[in-house]
Parts: sequence; structure tokens; C-alpha cells
Amino acid sequence: MIYFDHAATTPLLDEVHKLVCEGLKEDYANPSSKHKLGSIVASKIESARKKILKNLECKNYDLIFTSSATESNNQVIKSFSDPSKIIYCLSDHPSISKCLEHSGQFVLESDDIVEKVDSETELVIISLVNSQAGIIKDIEEISTSIKQKNPKTRVLVDAVQGLGKIPFSLSHSSIDYISIAGHKIGGPRGIAGLLIKKGAPIKALLEGGGHENGLRSSTPATSLILGFEKAIEISCANLDRNYNEVEQLKNHLINSMAVIHKNIEFPFKEIQTSPYIVCLIFKGIPSDVLLRHLEMKEVYISSTTACSSKIKGRNPMFVGLGLEEKYHKNVMRISFCSTTTKEDVELFISKFKEVINEVSFLIK
Amino acid sequence: MIYFDHAATTPLLDEVHKLVCEGLKEDYANPSSKHKLGSIVASKIESARKKILKNLECKNYDLIFTSSATESNNQVIKSFSDPSKIIYCLSDHPSISKCLEHSGQFVLESDDIVEKVDSETELVIISLVNSQAGIIKDIEEISTSIKQKNPKTRVLVDAVQGLGKIPFSLSHSSIDYISIAGHKIGGPRGIAGLLIKKGAPIKALLEGGGHENGLRSSTPATSLILGFEKAIEISCANLDRNYNEVEQLKNHLINSMAVIHKNIEFPFKEIQTSPYIVCLIFKGIPSDVLLRHLEMKEVYISSTTACSSKIKGRNPMFVGLGLEEKYHKNVMRISFCSTTTKEDVELFISKFKEVINEVSFLIK
Repeated sequence: MIYFDHAATTPLLDEVHKLVCEGLKEDYANPSSKHKLGSIVASKIESARKKILKNLECKNYDLIFTSSATESNNQVIKSFSDPSKIIYCLSDHPSISKCLEHSGQFVLESDDIVEKVDSETELVIISLVNSQAGIIKDIEEISTSIKQKNPKTRVLVDAVQGLGKIPFSLSHSSIDYISIAGHKIGGPRGIAGLLIKKGAPIKALLEGGGHENGLRSSTPATSLILGFEKAIEISCANLDRNYNEVEQLKNHLINSMAVIHKNIEFPFKEIQTSPYIVCLIFKGIPSDVLLRHLEMKEVYISSTTACSSKIKGRNPMFVGLGLEEKYHKNVMRISFCSTTTKEDVELFISKFKEVINEVSFLIK
Repeated sequence: MIYFDHAATTPLLDEVHKLVCEGLKEDYANPSSKHKLGSIVASKIESARKKILKNLECKNYDLIFTSSATESNNQVIKSFSDPSKIIYCLSDHPSISKCLEHSGQFVLESDDIVEKVDSETELVIISLVNSQAGIIKDIEEISTSIKQKNPKTRVLVDAVQGLGKIPFSLSHSSIDYISIAGHKIGGPRGIAGLLIKKGAPIKALLEGGGHENGLRSSTPATSLILGFEKAIEISCANLDRNYNEVEQLKNHLINSMAVIHKNIEFPFKEIQTSPYIVCLIFKGIPSDVLLRHLEMKEVYISSTTACSSKIKGRNPMFVGLGLEEKYHKNVMRISFCSTTTKEDVELFISKFKEVINEVSFLIK
């Protein structure tokens, strides 16, 4: 079986799985309970929070735990009262683009987002790594340019596809908010985070018991928090090595695939992209057909992001990325994780070749 | 060790723990992914959803999974544009009272909430079981009376402390929304639900990938959903037996405690309360002191709900319950779960006696 849909979500790392299962058993007390059992659990959560802040070199930031990156992005967006003063990219994750579809101002991936900033702009959203194409943004440079143009403008970075995979430091950052999640790097689902620069305005989306410094009420899910932290710790510790290894795999995949059939194209080959994501187009055969044939050989990839799979009509992500509409039905995404091996890639290539042989008669 | 703080949160049931750990390992695919791995996981989620609806006899309801009952309550409240047309009880959980503190209309526990309903009322919130005092409300009767007075008024029931513990049927219910969570009945934290009567208005709080029928975007946490379902299934299957057993334990505790010291009072003894929650007052000694002494003997109970523990100043829950202010510092809550035994209760009583002997010199 080949699972190359890690940008949708990854299996848990063994160490994370062990920790979460232990936590589910042992750390059952409510961290808000005033007794010792509650305090022990609360201190484990605080320790996880500190470790994440340290691993991401975030000394000027607070971290709140949320249930998903969707929640983190929504919380920042909904902290601003006038969405028409928010600028985002149409190719951002649906938790941004859907949230702002009727009210925000958007640019395309090829546009210079800084140009769009004016004296009224309250928030600009940047994706560190685009989840469909893998395009990497220089978040620090863009943020600095935005603030040179309008020092009052706040910047939110959606770092979900970059966390633990793409090097970035927040030690001297001008970025105001960073949304993170662990389930693309072997952490559990149901937990995520929002880094908030000290002093940046933020409102609670969930109100109640005043957890997370009043910014996110709900009984915390201790074991998930511990697993989330561990996934970040492991990914950050091995980031460079993993990056280089996965980059070699990606290059090998692209070079091998390009010669399989003349109809295969890699539309973002000339742009700096994450080694973990490969976006390709097979002209002439709908990706649905290819994916179904691959699935029959136990090979799992996707066409678009899982969170865009329910979209009816044109996929705004494809439009934002500037993909020609006639090829929208031909787009595929292959995505790796840190434990992907050369053998996996070789097997994938051979299975893909088989599928092409089976379906090439369909090409018009 | 005696843990009698189950109303704050409970350890996972063994069967639930096993299921969640297996799910964390195996059901890693993203349920929104279109490939087979995604569909398998998605169908497990749909199966869990159906089982919950069946176990709660909810054929006229849809169920969406949320991250917490706080989120469920917030989502309903924030679906109504004018909070001044919402009536709640001051003794409701902070996810209701805090959310409405500056805007909603409140009653006290002793008030008749139906009387407050008028032609303008859009939403009334009722707690099935009060989390501090255990008071049980006849939710069906209240809901019916509300709708007789104003058929357009919607009713939200916070059923968190009653789910799997107190019998209630929704098969012919007039209630519009019911918020549920599993972590008071041996289910995992980080997952909860909202039952929505077909046709009742509801808005998404989290927008993005359109999960949960567009009502709650975020990659679902499959393993938590499966564990949540299992906890409900087990609790509902054993509800009557557990109720009777725990009721005997509660009666035994109250009868034994009442004779330990004349300063012990059970303020809600004459009202119908949940067997799982015992609220008591020890006049003359602050509960903080008693709780610290109990803790030294490895006995863990609480003064107020965990979600109220961060409150500064007067606890609105105590005010709502009509507890005299001079006794606010003397309130304690003991809470059981389905696996609490008579031996646990006996041990608790003996430890409590020891503590009273140690601290009774403090009584003025």
C-alpha cells in the first residue's frame, strides 16, 4: 500500500501514539480542577506549551490550544470587525477563503499581495506553504513589506503545511498570528494551536470557563496536547535532514514521472515549493479516473486538498493558483511525510506507469 | 486514592480507551479524502453518528460533532443575532452564562423560567442537570410550556451532566437543540456533539471545508468520535442499573455524612437531584481548607465546577442556585461515576471524618 496523501493527514508517529494513549489513561483529571490531580495535568499542559514556543523560537508570542487550524484561522479573522479590510489569497485553505468569500479582498497567487495593502488594511493572510501546490512564501519578507506600507496592518500566517517541514524562525518576526496543527506531521487530529504576538488584538471565539487565558474556553484535551507537542518536537529536531531526504525523493519522482508520458506536467516546477507536496496535471485524462485506477492498486493520492473535496463548481484554490480552467479536472496532488522512503516512491512510479498503460487509450 | 470529581471529568472506560487507541493508529486517513481510505473512515464516523442518534432516540434530529460542549452551547447562542432575546439560568454552565453575561436575560434556579418567556423570546436555555447542585429539570415539560406560551421560541438543553446518567427520550421532543459531551461518562475530551432538530435554525461557528454538513468545518478527529460513541452506548445500555446503584451510594453518603458533624448541610436534599452529584456545605470551615486536607489523604473532590474555578469574585452559579453568600466559601461538590463502589464511599466517609477531626478546632 502506498499512502501519498500526507498533506491531508498523516498516521501518528509511534512515539506520539504511545504518548497519547498513555495520556488518555493517566492524565484524565480536569486541568481546571483545583486539586493536585488537576494541577499535575495543568502543569503538563503548560510544559507542552513552553516546549512548543521554544521549538518554534517564539519568545514574543503566546500560544493557545484550539481544536483545529480551521478554528485558529477563524478566530483571528473573526477578531476583526470589518472583513472587507482583510486581504487573503484565493488559493489559501478554505478555512480562510470560505470564511472571507463574501466579504474579504483577495489576490491571486501570482499577484503581489503587498501592493494591495493600503491605509485601510487591517489584516493580511499569508500561507507559508500552499496546500495544493506546495508553493513556499517568504513570510518574513512579505510581513515586513506589509508593515512598511502600513504599520497598523496585522499579519496572519497559516503555517499548517510548513510546520516541522519548512525552516522558519519567529525569534525576530513581525508576524502577528501563526496558525499551526500537528496532524500533517504525525500528531493527532482534534488539536491545533494559535501563536499570538504579545500585544496583538485577539477575541475569544469560544466563551465559557475562561481557559487559555480567557481566549479559548473548553476543557482542554490533555493527551492530544501532549501528542501535538511531541510531533512538533520530533519534526523540528529532524527538519533539515527530513527536508533534504524528501527533496531528493521529490526530484526523483518528478524526473521519473516526466518521462512516463508527454501529457504529464508539473505546473509549479519553476517556483520554490515544499518537497513534501507535488502538484501535477495529466492532460487528457480526468484525475478522478487516474485516482480510481491507482486506488485499485492500493495507491492513495488526491486531486485537491481534503478540505476542498466538498466544493461544488470551480475550486477557488485552482483559480487562485492560476491553473487553466480546462485542466482543473486533471490536477493531482502527491504528498509525502518524513518517513516516506525511496522504495515507496519507486513503487508509486511503477504503479503509476501501469495505470497510464491501462488508461492511455482514453486520451483524446 | 479516591477520585470523586467525576462531574469535572472521568477516566476513560477501558473499552473506550482501547477503541480510541486503535482508531488513532488505524483510522488515520482524512474522512474528507475521496479515496477508499478516506471513505472507510468517513463511514465509521457516519456509523457512530447513527448509533448516537439511535441510542438517544433522536430520529427527528441531526447530530454534528464539535470539540466541546462549550462549543456546542456557543454555536447555538451565536446563531441568534439578538442575545437580549435569550433567557438562561444564572446557575447554568459558564459556556452559557459567560457567553450571555452582558446581554442575555437570566433567571434564578428557583424562578419559573416559563414565566419570563414573552412574545419576543427567541431562545430559552435549560440545563438537564445543574453541574454544581445536580438539580434535574423536567426538560420536556418546560420546553412544552415554553412553546405553548410562544411557539416561535427555540429551546436549547445543556444535557452534559445528564447524558448516559439520567433517562430522557427525544423521540417526541419539542426541544430544538441538545448539547452533549462524553467526558463525564468515560469518553475522551476534545469531542462533543450538538443535536439539532430538523428545521431549527443554526449557523456555523467554524467555516472552511464544509464538514458536518457545512455546520462545523475542521478535519474530524475520527478516533475521538468513535470513543465518544462507545461511551454513550455503554452508558445508555447500563443507565437504569447504574442510576439505581449510584443512587444508593448517594443516599448512603448523605445519611452517613449528616451524622458526622452538625455543621454539614445538604442544601438541595429536598429537590430532585442527580445521584451522581452531591452538593454540600460545611459551615464554619472554608472548603479550600477541607479540600486541601482531603487531598493530603489522596481524596479528590471539588468546591465548584472546574469550568468555574477561574472565576474571580462571586460565583454566578452559587448566586443562581440561591446559596446564601455567607456560605459560598463553604460549598463542596462530590461527584460519582458508574464504576464508583460502596467501598469507595466508605473510604471517603472515613477520610472525611478524619479531616473533620483534624480541622474542627477551626470552627468559630
